[in-house]
Amino acid sequence: MSSTNSISMNRAHIEQLVRDSLRRQVGGMGRSRISGPNPLVVNISARHCHLSQSAVETLFGKGHQLTPKKWLYQEGQYAAEESVTLIGPRSRVISNLRILGPCRDFNQVELAYTDAISLGFDIPTRNSGDIKGTPGCMLMGPAGFLKMQEGVIRAAPHVHMAPEDAAFYGVENKSFMKLKIGGALGVTFDRIFVRVDPSFKLEVHIDTDEGNSCGFGPDVPCELVR
Amino acid sequence: MSSTNSISMNRAHIEQLVRDSLRRQVGGMGRSRISGPNPLVVNISARHCHLSQSAVETLFGKGHQLTPKKWLYQEGQYAAEESVTLIGPRSRVISNLRILGPCRDFNQVELAYTDAISLGFDIPTRNSGDIKGTPGCMLMGPAGFLKMQEGVIRAAPHVHMAPEDAAFYGVENKSFMKLKIGGALGVTFDRIFVRVDPSFKLEVHIDTDEGNSCGFGPDVPCELVR
Repeated sequence: MSSTNSISMNRAHIEQLVRDSLRRQVGGMGRSRISGPNPLVVNISARHCHLSQSAVETLFGKGHQLTPKKWLYQEGQYAAEESVTLIGPRSRVISNLRILGPCRDFNQVELAYTDAISLGFDIPTRNSGDIKGTPGCMLMGPAGFLKMQEGVIRAAPHVHMAPEDAAFYGVENKSFMKLKIGGALGVTFDRIFVRVDPSFKLEVHIDTDEGNSCGFGPDVPCELVR
Repeated sequence: MSSTNSISMNRAHIEQLVRDSLRRQVGGMGRSRISGPNPLVVNISARHCHLSQSAVETLFGKGHQLTPKKWLYQEGQYAAEESVTLIGPRSRVISNLRILGPCRDFNQVELAYTDAISLGFDIPTRNSGDIKGTPGCMLMGPAGFLKMQEGVIRAAPHVHMAPEDAAFYGVENKSFMKLKIGGALGVTFDRIFVRVDPSFKLEVHIDTDEGNSCGFGPDVPCELVR
């Protein structure tokens, strides 16, 4: 895991360098700014779920433990080998919904709006963990079914950061920032929810709808602004 | 057609009234502004194609004329009863691709980025009509196949307006404006391409990816700014 993390850091730094260089050369973002204490990483979250250990055992069998497949940028977080099938309210299905680990103390499915349309139901935009009153769904694993009474959301776009990043940008936990995306399809996401924790690495999470709206990729300039 | 258009105008005015009212009540867009000479209409374009008369005859038979099914907001433009099947480069298919009429003198398919991903190919973002060097595809109709050598694009977001609107907003043909979308998923589209023509009614066209990124709908406040 530590070697994977060091690769991630290198990639993050390289992307930052490319973006800084592009910005200098083509003025993509309109104005330059001094980089903060940490490189800005923007990642697109594809649909996924978080499960409790109890839910994992219902779906995969008693005593089953998730197996990390790919470590994510945030320390200790991983995409698991295991995936589930999501069954929506009209028996429409999404196969191979990835599980992110480690286990949490609640079950939550995060879909893009496009996914919700294809399943034929309406989901609210919420911050992770704020699932009260949201729609439920059925999950299917190799060992059984799990009926979720609630927990299907579209995750609000957000940024993880450490206190030193918050100080640099002049923002507080639970405030909002803007993410400016350059390029031919320039878009500014005006409401990026700020989550500050000493364990967090600076990383914006947008979903596939948001990523596709602006054609986001490693060569597209981006900037976080208050 | 004229009655449909007057209904559209009414709907446009009503939406504008609702937005103005919401803005006053909840301050959704942060600041109010005096409305322009015409109400702002924002429509989400689902994937579709424009065809030449010759292409229509190849796909639907000699002498076939498109049948209007639903009149669009721009004068004389319609969604046709007829649809085609699009076959992508890996034999993946999109069924019921709607044809917009009347016929043009070139063939063009407009997809969202999500559609292009599901078909498994890469499409550039272009303004309508600017299709040189873009990917092609195969279309299938009840009377035959049409091989398009080029013409598959993601349409750049754009606004149609009359000269009086351009004067009000202080913009020129082929310049760019911003479209601010309010609500919980507030987004600003920074590069809305301006198309000015005396025949145009004020209307922004964004695609389904852009619409889904911000959860756009009739009750979501929006504002066009220079």
